[in-house]
Amino acid sequence: MIITMKKQTPKEEIDALMSRLDAKGLRIHSSIGENYNVFGLVGDTSVIDPKQIEANPYVESVVRVAAPYKKANRLFHPEDTIVNIGGIPIGGKEDLVVIGGPCSIEGKESTVAIAKAVKEAGGCMLRGGAYKPRTSPYAFQGMGTEGILAMVEARKETGLPIVSELMSTDKLDEFVEYVDCIQIGARNMQNFDLLKAVGKVQTPVLLKRGLANTIEEWIMAAEYIMSEGNQNVIFCERGIRTFEKYTRNTLDLSVIPIIKEKTHLPIIIDPSHATGDWKLVESMSLAAIAAGADGLIIEVHENPECAWSDGAQSLKPNRFAEVIEKGRTIAQVIGRGIV
Amino acid sequence: MIITMKKQTPKEEIDALMSRLDAKGLRIHSSIGENYNVFGLVGDTSVIDPKQIEANPYVESVVRVAAPYKKANRLFHPEDTIVNIGGIPIGGKEDLVVIGGPCSIEGKESTVAIAKAVKEAGGCMLRGGAYKPRTSPYAFQGMGTEGILAMVEARKETGLPIVSELMSTDKLDEFVEYVDCIQIGARNMQNFDLLKAVGKVQTPVLLKRGLANTIEEWIMAAEYIMSEGNQNVIFCERGIRTFEKYTRNTLDLSVIPIIKEKTHLPIIIDPSHATGDWKLVESMSLAAIAAGADGLIIEVHENPECAWSDGAQSLKPNRFAEVIEKGRTIAQVIGRGIV
Amino acid sequence: MIITMKKQTPKEEIDALMSRLDAKGLRIHSSIGENYNVFGLVGDTSVIDPKQIEANPYVESVVRVAAPYKKANRLFHPEDTIVNIGGIPIGGKEDLVVIGGPCSIEGKESTVAIAKAVKEAGGCMLRGGAYKPRTSPYAFQGMGTEGILAMVEARKETGLPIVSELMSTDKLDEFVEYVDCIQIGARNMQNFDLLKAVGKVQTPVLLKRGLANTIEEWIMAAEYIMSEGNQNVIFCERGIRTFEKYTRNTLDLSVIPIIKEKTHLPIIIDPSHATGDWKLVESMSLAAIAAGADGLIIEVHENPECAWSDGAQSLKPNRFAEVIEKGRTIAQVIGRGIV
Amino acid sequence: MIITMKKQTPKEEIDALMSRLDAKGLRIHSSIGENYNVFGLVGDTSVIDPKQIEANPYVESVVRVAAPYKKANRLFHPEDTIVNIGGIPIGGKEDLVVIGGPCSIEGKESTVAIAKAVKEAGGCMLRGGAYKPRTSPYAFQGMGTEGILAMVEARKETGLPIVSELMSTDKLDEFVEYVDCIQIGARNMQNFDLLKAVGKVQTPVLLKRGLANTIEEWIMAAEYIMSEGNQNVIFCERGIRTFEKYTRNTLDLSVIPIIKEKTHLPIIIDPSHATGDWKLVESMSLAAIAAGADGLIIEVHENPECAWSDGAQSLKPNRFAEVIEKGRTIAQVIGRGIV
Repeated sequence: MIITMKKQTPKEEIDALMSRLDAKGLRIHSSIGENYNVFGLVGDTSVIDPKQIEANPYVESVVRVAAPYKKANRLFHPEDTIVNIGGIPIGGKEDLVVIGGPCSIEGKESTVAIAKAVKEAGGCMLRGGAYKPRTSPYAFQGMGTEGILAMVEARKETGLPIVSELMSTDKLDEFVEYVDCIQIGARNMQNFDLLKAVGKVQTPVLLKRGLANTIEEWIMAAEYIMSEGNQNVIFCERGIRTFEKYTRNTLDLSVIPIIKEKTHLPIIIDPSHATGDWKLVESMSLAAIAAGADGLIIEVHENPECAWSDGAQSLKPNRFAEVIEKGRTIAQVIGRGIV
Repeated sequence: MIITMKKQTPKEEIDALMSRLDAKGLRIHSSIGENYNVFGLVGDTSVIDPKQIEANPYVESVVRVAAPYKKANRLFHPEDTIVNIGGIPIGGKEDLVVIGGPCSIEGKESTVAIAKAVKEAGGCMLRGGAYKPRTSPYAFQGMGTEGILAMVEARKETGLPIVSELMSTDKLDEFVEYVDCIQIGARNMQNFDLLKAVGKVQTPVLLKRGLANTIEEWIMAAEYIMSEGNQNVIFCERGIRTFEKYTRNTLDLSVIPIIKEKTHLPIIIDPSHATGDWKLVESMSLAAIAAGADGLIIEVHENPECAWSDGAQSLKPNRFAEVIEKGRTIAQVIGRGIV
Repeated sequence: MIITMKKQTPKEEIDALMSRLDAKGLRIHSSIGENYNVFGLVGDTSVIDPKQIEANPYVESVVRVAAPYKKANRLFHPEDTIVNIGGIPIGGKEDLVVIGGPCSIEGKESTVAIAKAVKEAGGCMLRGGAYKPRTSPYAFQGMGTEGILAMVEARKETGLPIVSELMSTDKLDEFVEYVDCIQIGARNMQNFDLLKAVGKVQTPVLLKRGLANTIEEWIMAAEYIMSEGNQNVIFCERGIRTFEKYTRNTLDLSVIPIIKEKTHLPIIIDPSHATGDWKLVESMSLAAIAAGADGLIIEVHENPECAWSDGAQSLKPNRFAEVIEKGRTIAQVIGRGIV
Repeated sequence: MIITMKKQTPKEEIDALMSRLDAKGLRIHSSIGENYNVFGLVGDTSVIDPKQIEANPYVESVVRVAAPYKKANRLFHPEDTIVNIGGIPIGGKEDLVVIGGPCSIEGKESTVAIAKAVKEAGGCMLRGGAYKPRTSPYAFQGMGTEGILAMVEARKETGLPIVSELMSTDKLDEFVEYVDCIQIGARNMQNFDLLKAVGKVQTPVLLKRGLANTIEEWIMAAEYIMSEGNQNVIFCERGIRTFEKYTRNTLDLSVIPIIKEKTHLPIIIDPSHATGDWKLVESMSLAAIAAGADGLIIEVHENPECAWSDGAQSLKPNRFAEVIEKGRTIAQVIGRGIV
């Protein structure tokens, strides 16, 4: 951590701050410039809140040098973490996973049907929303428990592990009992109470990136989960909010190499929510594989025009199969397979 | 709602969509253009999900004309709503409220002291965080119940109503029992389960704008609360995320006239979190009053350099008093007072 | 400037970099951390390009401590600069200026008429676009020289100094001959050739902030002009691009105290382009005055529905007069007047 | 175009607007809703400025249905345009081009050397900056004409066509004489005078996307060039500004399928400027190829640590060769080659 103090700072103010930092066990190196005084802190600076130091009117700026995350940090955990969802390993050099399914669960029969279609097309996991975060209170809010049970039935019939979004701590027990992977949605990425709650169980967590969050904030959200004990975190990029209007969000594929450099955790890509347009899903899926993603999560619906939500971004099963087919050839080129 | 279909759409596809919309009780007006077919829907279009219609491959675009909110909509509720917090009315032509207090509650004694200082400076309500949303799991997370009780003590000593942030539904009973106004933080603006929960009680809710949310999404968050029964919602602008680095966030004061045009609810401004810099608080406070805000919420700390969080943006009590003093003269000019 | 090198950096790599920096006349202070090596550079670091140093694979980060601007920097020029436009002083403690006029000049007669209306309403300068930056090549591109001459005529009749936007160096001579203040538009804020050209003349420059530029980039654009010799630069905030859809742009009023802290130059506010909505102009004008702006530039049109561009944001002259009237009372409160 | 008027609009106001639109040769279809009146305009709506209509206080909103671009629009020009740069075709099903070279030209000798290295590595064109857009007036501004002549020499020695950035109309003749492709930089994407100037020549134009511009604005910039007569426009995505700090910009690869759907022009990707980090260039290059790009433009420097600008994002020639090598296998999978 580097602290810059203004040139005209009285010596006693400098000494006061330095002795307070010294008391926290930090060593201090000073540099005196033409217009500023610069101090480098050496030691465990995670005990210090930069904003508190900035409150000192003589302080010009405070810059953190070390990353604020520890458990997610590859620096302290160099090997890749492999997360296991219902028997399927994700991450490292493992084969890529392709997760398919509807935005919203619409009933037991249709869920079993789409699960079979996903499996036949080459998907290895089923996604589906039973609790839906909707901008409007008047929009369909999901089938709830009934939806979760429809997915359980689909798993029984197909063997596909199931992934679904948890929106509140109230339902955590239900999720731990029934689902194979708990999704934390973009709007809840900084719902810290929810993060702490899923950190206390061992079910794998698919952590979506917030709409306007930086990668560092995203890793810190993972750190919340990991610091409570659950190391089974998978990042999921689903597009960020930008000024662009031709897509719902802007898919940021550079997160793939960055997450792999900064952390030891797996990362998968959601091209459906990112673009909001089924016509863009294939090209973005292939790009994600080429960039090194550990998997894809794609919306699949048998009849997108009749889907209860987000039909515009859903692929029909035959197009989903084509994406996996082409994806396999791209994966091969970079030395990986698809489950 | 206006639906545009591509020129080459087969007649049977147009008819199929139209009969489906007709079955929802909507009347349809058609316009046939050179390159597009345009259909205007008349009736209660809130029953339709635009994304579902966009899933139709012949549909080019779907545009909503009517606002998606009802209870918050001034169109259906022309008079100003006055929200009452611990006996103090907010909104309409009422006097402005100025809420002061520390970012984090740090103990009973200091809370009572700051409450007295806030009151003496001219503030009419006490703010303070007992449960803190922090980016890092290693940062101070707030004193919890003990912090709430410290505020209760401060209220007993000064008579100031108290405002504090609720982060999870678990603590709702505690808040209903003890606080006068429940704050929903920016990171939870779209935590829909929390919104529904505070909608089921009658305690006033201070609803902060999300970091990267539009005004419409913000009003829809209020609509979540109101649709459950609680009409006592106060908007609070606290800055949005932009590319600017000299301020923590960018304060958007144009929301004041917009919220007042689109809704009937009060709006207050938080210049402390918006700017992240105490030096900017006075000018932004005066600007907010000139623009018609119903109140201000400002961080006040007796010793900002030693604050447990966000010291950099806290005013000392004497500066807080100055802001209120100058604010009073600005308020007078636009025909209002300060409580 | 502070350079952080990775822990495992070989000593010879550190030495090589240090001796290169030493050769540039900089003194270096070293701090050795647990996981990093930190070096503080003392001296004139403006000779160093941070990106070049970051190219070194052993370098983790490079942080600039001193501001990259000199001529605009209040640190080296503590007194306020007063810019004089056609005899009217702007900045410091001077009275505020209110500039009014149409988005596009539409003919000599209408320009003279609007200039008279602006003057009568209390405005002290005339604005008008003769060369228009338009998103579409098919939109009206402005009357060109004829438009400039219409403004000259209006000045002759009313005495109001004139402000107009310059879009290319080709027309610089025309502007130097005829206009009192050259406006550089938001889209040209980083058109460095244009900045250098207006830096070589002495006509005052109204420098609009780019749509998605930081304050530092904006000050650097002023630095371009000043480094060529022209010190008569006035900043003009006109809103930045955000995700908000209810306004055209988001007006950032916090720039007023920031520009005044970081630089010695005047700053005025354009509430018309910022909001894109005439209904918001009054409240944002009053807020700007309360926040300490040195002036306002407002679109005025006698018949906004028939304006050739940007009618939606234009005030009729009587409303413009009201804004000035109310603004005067706000200005008084903060100890200033309006010209 | 669809115009919505408020419910309470007097009939004479509606009639007045309609007759004005009718006079422009447009047919009008009306829909009367519960709370709004909706009018669909049929005909050539490019003659109408939406903002002018929005100035009418009875108008609620104006929505454009048809795209505002014509010459770039695939709707009116279904076949792919192939642009030819120095004998190399770009676009359609042609082989991908990989353009390499330094950010800044640093001298004749080094330029010839890097050109040879680019060619040997498999690149087919040379890029290099002779006129540099720099945020600071104190940073190196490029070698100018001397730099262009160094590239000409490199072309003579290697046969590689050359691409360089034009910053002002003053130098257009020089570029037409010497370079094979004129680059318009991100900061000049809406420098409309420069766009018109390059529209009047026939040299191919590489049009970079602005830092915070939408795809529609980008296509409109191409339309400016094309409307003046030059149809040889190639889009180049180089990342957009977002809140992310771990990359310089955020590369938006979804533009590839969108540009190909909306327009008939080629698109290439610049992973170097987009990420600002050479470690991310390979993965983003492969992703771009997988997504269907028509080419790549990559910074290459023999000694990035000593580059005069942007060394941090430059690849050494051997790494550049690796990217092309791997890229070739990805291209093959999607049925294309690399020149």
